[in-house]
Amino acid sequence: MNDITVLEALKQALRRLPGVGPKSASRMAYHLLERDREGARTIARALTDAVERIVHCKRCNNLSETELCPICSSNRRDKSLLCVVESPSDLVSLDQSGVYNGMYFVLMGRLSPLDGIGPDEIGIPRLEALLDEGSIKEVVLATNLTVEGEATAHYISDLVRARHIKATRIAYGVPIGGELEYTDRNTLARALAGRREA
Amino acid sequence: MNDITVLEALKQALRRLPGVGPKSASRMAYHLLERDREGARTIARALTDAVERIVHCKRCNNLSETELCPICSSNRRDKSLLCVVESPSDLVSLDQSGVYNGMYFVLMGRLSPLDGIGPDEIGIPRLEALLDEGSIKEVVLATNLTVEGEATAHYISDLVRARHIKATRIAYGVPIGGELEYTDRNTLARALAGRREA
Repeated sequence: MNDITVLEALKQALRRLPGVGPKSASRMAYHLLERDREGARTIARALTDAVERIVHCKRCNNLSETELCPICSSNRRDKSLLCVVESPSDLVSLDQSGVYNGMYFVLMGRLSPLDGIGPDEIGIPRLEALLDEGSIKEVVLATNLTVEGEATAHYISDLVRARHIKATRIAYGVPIGGELEYTDRNTLARALAGRREA
Repeated sequence: MNDITVLEALKQALRRLPGVGPKSASRMAYHLLERDREGARTIARALTDAVERIVHCKRCNNLSETELCPICSSNRRDKSLLCVVESPSDLVSLDQSGVYNGMYFVLMGRLSPLDGIGPDEIGIPRLEALLDEGSIKEVVLATNLTVEGEATAHYISDLVRARHIKATRIAYGVPIGGELEYTDRNTLARALAGRREA
């Protein structure tokens, strides 16, 4: 069976998906080849399209099909409010809560000095450039409520206040140690409504 | 955010993988786009290659890159023994047990009259043609030890014995209701060694 290198290559490739180990990868490969070849083609096409067409918004850093994402180019958003999140999926979760109508800035992760991830690695210089434009009156720090997320929020709040801009932190609702991506929208809405000065 | 149709298309496509729901699909999409774009390209390429290059062996019906798979074209296999399995992954599991050196026939699933899956749907006519060639002395029935797998084995054993060929069923070791794909190789080896007349 070792001759089937194309099949082995497919199993190996599928293991690059998060949460997929050898058994799942094998199961997926056989499922697609035996029962859903059209699905395999669809997934391949969707992956290629996504990698080719999705870029980062040059202003907020969110995933976008256009140079400026729909939120940054909208006229119906409050330009004086800036919400800082760790990832595009956090942005989606917060925006779907429906209580926030400001702008966003998507960090590339969170500060993690032990892993060599400092301010430059997560895009802080671009955030500072945004703050220096002068239109932002309040920065809502919506990094995760984990140790690293808190440290990141604390670091940014110093930068914000040094510019005499109000810095707030999302509050109760999201459980300690919890991840925004997996929090229901009511809890996220309460966390946004209950934000306080950082 | 509804404007990002390419991202939505990717999430939808990933849900065609077995065991992947909306949350996992979303997580996979963001992971690939944010942290492993090369992985996305690799998976797309592997899927396309697999769908284009992997066919079914014209003799045993196993997945193969060549018209005749490596097992069917091997000279070191016992051509008088034929093991019937439900799927290519079952074949791999059995073959890795190392105690079986005969040929295989891969059914396209198992009999399931309630779902409209009869003998023709799982490739029984091709199996009968193989039996009629006259070189096979024993058929090892290695369908799963589930209700449908047992019914399939029973159905095939009648066809086999009608041709005065010995029919055996893999035996103890694989737990009742269990799936071959998830059975360890020692248990599979014992099941093969303990096969009995069906």
